[in-house]
Amino acid sequence: MESLQDNISELIAHGLDTIQYPTTAPALYVPIAYTLESGGKRLRPRLLLSAFAAFAGDRPLKEALPQALGLEIFHNFTLLHDDVMDNADIRRGRPTVHKRWNENAAILSGDAMLTLATEYIADCKVELLPEVLKLFNTTAMEIYQGQQLDVDFEERNDVSVEEYIEMIRLKTSVLLGCACRMGAMLAGASEEACRAMYEYGTDLGLAFQLRDDWLDTFGDPLEFGKEIGGDIINAKKTWLLITALQESDGEVEAILKEDLEPEERVRQIVRTYRSLDIDKRCNALVKEYSEKACGALKGVAMDGKLYDYFVELARKCADRTH
Amino acid sequence: MESLQDNISELIAHGLDTIQYPTTAPALYVPIAYTLESGGKRLRPRLLLSAFAAFAGDRPLKEALPQALGLEIFHNFTLLHDDVMDNADIRRGRPTVHKRWNENAAILSGDAMLTLATEYIADCKVELLPEVLKLFNTTAMEIYQGQQLDVDFEERNDVSVEEYIEMIRLKTSVLLGCACRMGAMLAGASEEACRAMYEYGTDLGLAFQLRDDWLDTFGDPLEFGKEIGGDIINAKKTWLLITALQESDGEVEAILKEDLEPEERVRQIVRTYRSLDIDKRCNALVKEYSEKACGALKGVAMDGKLYDYFVELARKCADRTH
Repeated sequence: MESLQDNISELIAHGLDTIQYPTTAPALYVPIAYTLESGGKRLRPRLLLSAFAAFAGDRPLKEALPQALGLEIFHNFTLLHDDVMDNADIRRGRPTVHKRWNENAAILSGDAMLTLATEYIADCKVELLPEVLKLFNTTAMEIYQGQQLDVDFEERNDVSVEEYIEMIRLKTSVLLGCACRMGAMLAGASEEACRAMYEYGTDLGLAFQLRDDWLDTFGDPLEFGKEIGGDIINAKKTWLLITALQESDGEVEAILKEDLEPEERVRQIVRTYRSLDIDKRCNALVKEYSEKACGALKGVAMDGKLYDYFVELARKCADRTH
Repeated sequence: MESLQDNISELIAHGLDTIQYPTTAPALYVPIAYTLESGGKRLRPRLLLSAFAAFAGDRPLKEALPQALGLEIFHNFTLLHDDVMDNADIRRGRPTVHKRWNENAAILSGDAMLTLATEYIADCKVELLPEVLKLFNTTAMEIYQGQQLDVDFEERNDVSVEEYIEMIRLKTSVLLGCACRMGAMLAGASEEACRAMYEYGTDLGLAFQLRDDWLDTFGDPLEFGKEIGGDIINAKKTWLLITALQESDGEVEAILKEDLEPEERVRQIVRTYRSLDIDKRCNALVKEYSEKACGALKGVAMDGKLYDYFVELARKCADRTH
């Protein structure tokens, strides 16, 4: 199994390294190459290729490589434009594109990445093209909706937990579901198997994002690689904050209104979180989604080693420290 | 003929009016509807449907409507993001999206428009899908390249006329070529006819853009609908300015360096243009491209009335006052 995942990692890295950019207007492509070489977990292409391997028998992984790269390019396009919208300075330890160059470069190179992603996605057998493309476009549209809801929520104080889960489902999870489903589709898996893979991916995505929320407050700064408490300082409406807002009888709202030093705000909110067991309940929810993801795969006829891989991935995700 | 063009206009207007936007995250779609209802010449969908009609015999126009709408949505997406990049306040007499809402709305709604456009383009017979999509994606990538070159040229004083023509070919013309070719492709025209239609469209686009450059300096402000001399005030490297920079022995460069009132700068540059016959030579070039466009259609087996329509359109374009 290790060696399959090693092959997958190598294929993705090599594929991203050898993208042929047009030679006209190089300034358009330099920020794209910069973005794609900056690393990251490569989770989406890994999921796609693993899902392909789970149903493809002996067929070579490279059959599904264009779509794997397409999703990674698409994901990085959303990060690029999100960073402009959030005015973020740093991404993966390096200056963001709009800081390194300028905002116009980030907008235009991002647009080109979306078209480039579509070109890669469309590079499949013609009989699969309509459904592959429809899945990709539908997913993309859902992600913009999720991003819009995230923006909308900033202005609202009455966001419910259900609305929050729906927002992260759209913003984050559907792309993992899309990766799993597309890999299975390309391998020719049954509609039932494709649906199970989509469910696995979206539940994995919810576990992943909720664990991210937890790590932002309760993680180890050295392992997580980001400043701890950022979400609290920015009053970001995560599952933790929304739940605390609902259950703390105005205590959290009062703390947020006070003119406190950032560390003091974090300290007081964390104390409230602990008093309501919000840290433990968040992790319980992470485990619930991670188990739900595994449950979706039960009874699906797929390669046994890859079944084990997917189950392990979901369980690791629930315990991840970075 | 009038009535066919009336039908086409009606189909496009009705198609754009009845786009079904998802109900999740309405804030994402309000700026899209705002952009699409703001009018414009609808030149790209009109070209696509006319090209379809020229080769489709009695088949209904609505067969090619999704692609016509897709190109109009795509074109408006490029305007939306260009307006952010140029920090433009007004488009078609109304505040631009980033002024009416904010920059983040313009970026995100623009992204959604690109995906929406791709969905419309992909709504065709599966056997045509690969080539239709390839034409669309290739064209989109060329347009970003053209926009990038336009940005690059701002920093350069040694842009040649050839480079300028290549830039406007990418930024503006290829989309008209794409519209003409896609209409013919959807109608099942021969590869030879498709190629001729593409050539017609791109040459029409060059004539169109060069006439636009001319109108910006020599047009009638009442008819043109824009302030005259804007390009000169902004020292925009149009065909007129590039030619004058090359031929005026440093006179134009000297004027641009002087600290003049805008009107005085326009007056002095226009005088130089006239002394070099640049106004007349620009129009001669417009006519050349317009005739070249018509020439591309010679000998192509198509509906005679639509042949006449395309020829008239190219000739009108060379004389247009707005």
